[in-house]
Amino acid sequence: MIVSTSALLDFLLQTRTQTETICKPLQIEDYVVQPIVDVSPPKWHLGHTTWFFEDFILKKYKSDYKEFDKQFAFVFNSYYESMGARVVRTDRGNLSRPTVEEVYAYRKYVTSALENLLQENDISKELEELIEIGIHHEKQHQELLLTDIKYILGNNPLQPVYSSNFNEYKTISKDAEWLSIKEGIYEIGHNDSGFCYDNELGRHKIFLQEFQISSELVTNAEYLQFIEDGGYDQVLLWHSEGWDWVKNNTISAPQYWQKQDGKWFCYHLNGVQKLDLEAPVTHISYYEAFAYAQWKGLRLPTEFEWEIAQSKFDWGQRWEWTESAYLPYPNYTKAPGALGEYNGKFMVSQKTLRGGSVATSENHTRATYRNFFHPQLRWQFTGLRLAR
Amino acid sequence: MIVSTSALLDFLLQTRTQTETICKPLQIEDYVVQPIVDVSPPKWHLGHTTWFFEDFILKKYKSDYKEFDKQFAFVFNSYYESMGARVVRTDRGNLSRPTVEEVYAYRKYVTSALENLLQENDISKELEELIEIGIHHEKQHQELLLTDIKYILGNNPLQPVYSSNFNEYKTISKDAEWLSIKEGIYEIGHNDSGFCYDNELGRHKIFLQEFQISSELVTNAEYLQFIEDGGYDQVLLWHSEGWDWVKNNTISAPQYWQKQDGKWFCYHLNGVQKLDLEAPVTHISYYEAFAYAQWKGLRLPTEFEWEIAQSKFDWGQRWEWTESAYLPYPNYTKAPGALGEYNGKFMVSQKTLRGGSVATSENHTRATYRNFFHPQLRWQFTGLRLAR
Amino acid sequence: MIVSTSALLDFLLQTRTQTETICKPLQIEDYVVQPIVDVSPPKWHLGHTTWFFEDFILKKYKSDYKEFDKQFAFVFNSYYESMGARVVRTDRGNLSRPTVEEVYAYRKYVTSALENLLQENDISKELEELIEIGIHHEKQHQELLLTDIKYILGNNPLQPVYSSNFNEYKTISKDAEWLSIKEGIYEIGHNDSGFCYDNELGRHKIFLQEFQISSELVTNAEYLQFIEDGGYDQVLLWHSEGWDWVKNNTISAPQYWQKQDGKWFCYHLNGVQKLDLEAPVTHISYYEAFAYAQWKGLRLPTEFEWEIAQSKFDWGQRWEWTESAYLPYPNYTKAPGALGEYNGKFMVSQKTLRGGSVATSENHTRATYRNFFHPQLRWQFTGLRLAR
Amino acid sequence: MIVSTSALLDFLLQTRTQTETICKPLQIEDYVVQPIVDVSPPKWHLGHTTWFFEDFILKKYKSDYKEFDKQFAFVFNSYYESMGARVVRTDRGNLSRPTVEEVYAYRKYVTSALENLLQENDISKELEELIEIGIHHEKQHQELLLTDIKYILGNNPLQPVYSSNFNEYKTISKDAEWLSIKEGIYEIGHNDSGFCYDNELGRHKIFLQEFQISSELVTNAEYLQFIEDGGYDQVLLWHSEGWDWVKNNTISAPQYWQKQDGKWFCYHLNGVQKLDLEAPVTHISYYEAFAYAQWKGLRLPTEFEWEIAQSKFDWGQRWEWTESAYLPYPNYTKAPGALGEYNGKFMVSQKTLRGGSVATSENHTRATYRNFFHPQLRWQFTGLRLAR
Repeated sequence: MIVSTSALLDFLLQTRTQTETICKPLQIEDYVVQPIVDVSPPKWHLGHTTWFFEDFILKKYKSDYKEFDKQFAFVFNSYYESMGARVVRTDRGNLSRPTVEEVYAYRKYVTSALENLLQENDISKELEELIEIGIHHEKQHQELLLTDIKYILGNNPLQPVYSSNFNEYKTISKDAEWLSIKEGIYEIGHNDSGFCYDNELGRHKIFLQEFQISSELVTNAEYLQFIEDGGYDQVLLWHSEGWDWVKNNTISAPQYWQKQDGKWFCYHLNGVQKLDLEAPVTHISYYEAFAYAQWKGLRLPTEFEWEIAQSKFDWGQRWEWTESAYLPYPNYTKAPGALGEYNGKFMVSQKTLRGGSVATSENHTRATYRNFFHPQLRWQFTGLRLAR
Repeated sequence: MIVSTSALLDFLLQTRTQTETICKPLQIEDYVVQPIVDVSPPKWHLGHTTWFFEDFILKKYKSDYKEFDKQFAFVFNSYYESMGARVVRTDRGNLSRPTVEEVYAYRKYVTSALENLLQENDISKELEELIEIGIHHEKQHQELLLTDIKYILGNNPLQPVYSSNFNEYKTISKDAEWLSIKEGIYEIGHNDSGFCYDNELGRHKIFLQEFQISSELVTNAEYLQFIEDGGYDQVLLWHSEGWDWVKNNTISAPQYWQKQDGKWFCYHLNGVQKLDLEAPVTHISYYEAFAYAQWKGLRLPTEFEWEIAQSKFDWGQRWEWTESAYLPYPNYTKAPGALGEYNGKFMVSQKTLRGGSVATSENHTRATYRNFFHPQLRWQFTGLRLAR
Repeated sequence: MIVSTSALLDFLLQTRTQTETICKPLQIEDYVVQPIVDVSPPKWHLGHTTWFFEDFILKKYKSDYKEFDKQFAFVFNSYYESMGARVVRTDRGNLSRPTVEEVYAYRKYVTSALENLLQENDISKELEELIEIGIHHEKQHQELLLTDIKYILGNNPLQPVYSSNFNEYKTISKDAEWLSIKEGIYEIGHNDSGFCYDNELGRHKIFLQEFQISSELVTNAEYLQFIEDGGYDQVLLWHSEGWDWVKNNTISAPQYWQKQDGKWFCYHLNGVQKLDLEAPVTHISYYEAFAYAQWKGLRLPTEFEWEIAQSKFDWGQRWEWTESAYLPYPNYTKAPGALGEYNGKFMVSQKTLRGGSVATSENHTRATYRNFFHPQLRWQFTGLRLAR
Repeated sequence: MIVSTSALLDFLLQTRTQTETICKPLQIEDYVVQPIVDVSPPKWHLGHTTWFFEDFILKKYKSDYKEFDKQFAFVFNSYYESMGARVVRTDRGNLSRPTVEEVYAYRKYVTSALENLLQENDISKELEELIEIGIHHEKQHQELLLTDIKYILGNNPLQPVYSSNFNEYKTISKDAEWLSIKEGIYEIGHNDSGFCYDNELGRHKIFLQEFQISSELVTNAEYLQFIEDGGYDQVLLWHSEGWDWVKNNTISAPQYWQKQDGKWFCYHLNGVQKLDLEAPVTHISYYEAFAYAQWKGLRLPTEFEWEIAQSKFDWGQRWEWTESAYLPYPNYTKAPGALGEYNGKFMVSQKTLRGGSVATSENHTRATYRNFFHPQLRWQFTGLRLAR
């Protein structure tokens, strides 16, 4: 909960600036392309987070607001189908216009209008909450921006550096320990006055069996053993659809790993580096995380186990795949109207991830935060923690 | 648990006969086709259930056993990838040979060999369990046989009758009531000495919030209101991928419904009939079940709620979609080797269904039985019960 | 031109019988499947050739004719789009009904009605011509029947024999000679009073440069040299789309060739045999024929060269790919109405083949006959004759 | 034939400059995208025409030449498969790097090196010919550049103007007349000392029947009558695969036509304009050209008829679809090695177009020039002239 309008304004302006700071190292060309359907052009992220404020806030709450460009709603809308026709996701990379310069002008125009709106009197509770959602929405896109940029540059044959200062990980030099949690009734869900998404609400009791969870993420060294033991060729380690995914896409290592003259290298935002064995493994799909756990004779934690145990270990380097499917909590209700499309409409066929990553914006994640992706995706900084 | 070898033999022979009884009304041509990837040709079901006994039992436990035809292992294998090369599923409908007559000869040969095996002394516990699995495996395929036959005949432009005696439903003439369950700790999972699959094992405690569940399945009359209210055109009722499914496949009613001169008809195994408003709605996808519940302002039960509440209502006409994803129970472990592929490898991206259906073989389902399908599938006798 | 009604009736009855004779060795199951889109189920050929007579002749010229089954027009129509809705080609293999027995009853009923029609007085010229087209249409399908049956059986893992008496080729034991044709003006197109298709009509002059054409078809021995010289791996021998076809389908030999323990075998209608080096190579695509000619430093003849030279060599074992595209002759005009769909609508993107094959019905081909297929197809008995 | 080295150099420099002049109106973003597989990013055209000179000329004929960047050969190669790995066509639009600035630097570097090479003594005949091919290759890409730019901008929802000075057509205000050509022997193919491609060579005799050809291209007014008469809904006017194309892509007008409030508009390089009825119709596929001719009871000319008649009418506004397939002339031989891939490898499944278009570079086309595209393509300035 934001204590004052001026604090809210500061938070807003910091967030808007931060998005642009992330894009600083880019060439104009980098803003435009969409190499796979899950990656959006950086230009689109810049426009979409702006459109969100314009459409949900300025057009409704600022009486004198004049829309920047009517067609932008069409271009920068995403999955909010009830808001009008949208640019189909796979078409985003075909659009050279509006230009990057025009998109920045759009950002400036909307940020300014928001600033004016917040400097007026009488900010209602409802409006304050919408602005807060807009800020957190933009923070979510900051993470996507970074991972989409990594995909765009890392899959270019020239493999250009994004920023030589960007460090993707801290090494794991300690041995992992098993942390034990007793069986019993626990409470799950958001519990304080800070911001959270609707999918974290409805704090409720669950029963957990006794379990143990690792104090550390799985490392590159450990994952390499799985590869060298032929893990990608042992059908019994995999889900049926995971096996099809491995075979159809000839997967044999995490994304961004590359072998040159018998040695493993890895593309990072600071360029191609020798594979660091003490780094936490990343850019793996749920299928790979599961197969690795099978190979070890262990398993992934559920999201509930993770939430209850999380205070006992460090987290935040990698989004951690859980065994849980992304489903509504008991008594979950979608917000009415278009905002209700935010989370609920994705609650099928996806897995929950917990934690956060090196690309997550500051203060954006928390112990109850639920991220979710389809099981084959690996362009995020995903990782893996074992349980038993 | 089977009490004696002769009881086991009876059970086996009844099951083998029942499979063939289901196929009695078919023409030879009906055994061969595969109109969609999820439907298998009846000939394949006959062969596959036989191959299962040959490959897992006869070749290992009957010392003098001579394989019927080496190539059949290739033709009738299914997803048991660790057993050798398999006929890709979409190719099953391209195979005119072996002929139906040859497949029946194969069945007879294998049934006979099993009979001999069971009449010998010293049936080990291990062998008894394998035979039991083989029997239940065949019972599962009996249900698929019936639903695949319905698809094959019901999608033929001539819409031939399977059997005029086959009644697909009992009408629901009572009003539904809300049955209440108190919050508390409950136990989930198989609990007696009878047969069950590995995915039901590991009985364990869970905590449930207080909830209410309907005493009746949703009827055609109720579902028709959803259609007439434009349910298939209201994006906010649907999951994102459900909406794509509706639009890409131009879905506007349950499978087998057809409108003629403004009136609704429905294909059943006993032919095309006027839509019976008091019948439980069936052949709907999870997406449709979910959208219907959204439209009512209600929800689907979880599989745990269903299992705890099920003794309070009648069930068994329709497989009931639940909100639960199909996931392993705590401490679930796959059986070693190829049999371990049976259930565990499907525990991702599918929804759990509970109950049973008019096509389920006698004594094949139970309160703890977990069926599972991808959310878009609807060629099974699926249905829907509301919760709140 | 048929000299009398009774001769026409004889020709009709012989043709109808011959179609059924071709199907004699089949099992009922063989009639039903459609392993690839270009192959039709034998059952469909039986019905389609019958529907042609019913729809174009009986329903128009036999006043008391009662349609056998209204729905058959829907099931057995092919590409005659102006005649009404058709069963999409890829769906033909999904239809178990009507049964084979019903299709034979349909044939008998229609043949009988045609017999009655022809025994009446006053057969008009127009009707006579339509019946003649119906007969030749059925003869065309006889060839397709045989090649489709070969595909259905030859791609079954059991590779069953169609008929041990069916001999697919005469060996080529003579050395090929170059036959020379002088430059000059020649005439192309049908020229006598016998039957021909509309695409052969409009006899017209063309100018040919001097050329030479081989007296013999290319043999398996010669084609094997191309394979052993790495012909399938030399990009410069191939058309761009031919190369894509080779790579996408991992083609490395003609269809039905199979290597076992380092030796080449070949599936024929009389079963799997050791590859006969003196047989004319067959089941090759146009792309392969072209690449072979490139490799030899030679070329394929045009269809005009072939027609002018054909009296100097033996032909009729293989349909011979030409370099010509299948295009209308000058002054070609489509017949009015649905019959006009017969040939003209295919005059784009296909190559012309000349000659005939071991599967061609007696008296069905002639020096001016133009067959046509897409360049990647090879399930027909295609072959290759060189020119320069 | 170029008379002197300095004239060759002038021609080269003019051509290099002209390519860059075409790109002047673009924003950097416009250089990057590839909305469909047939359209290449302008950046790629700039690089590819440069790579051609570097790879075929500088690396072989300039002893001290230092490659600009080894990886560019990978990025800017096109279909020259024998030259090494290439960027798959559909991936071109995913590459943000090299940047536009780097590509221009590459152009400058290579142009300079060519300038140095040409200022040295002893330019061999062979080298001169290669440079001439390089120039004409770049001129061909100039046309593609313009039509690709039109596609990129015209399919953007903002429909930006390329250049308000670019006029796409001259109106056709005269009535069309039939021009008659007598039957007889004519000569086809290139016949003077100027440059031509290998596919125009081998001048040879052909025989033509008497025919008539229209003095004018078909206009928008005429094509509109076809539309209003339901031409897109009459199956009998279309080739079978043309009909599938129309239905699968819901085609109902030429590309870039758009209806607003019942009135037709059209996107041009100078922006969206009211449809000009006196403009020659353009952006139609071969299928549409053929169906239009069928509807008129007329036909398209062959490429031979066109070449013989062309001196009697004005041409050059539109590439004109012919009825001819793109095939080798008698005695056509591919150049040895990679340059031989230039034309011959496309001589299957394409139609020949004759003439030239408003986007064709000055002096680039001629009476014997053979352009070729697949029958469904229409992003070029295609058009239609009738014959009978």
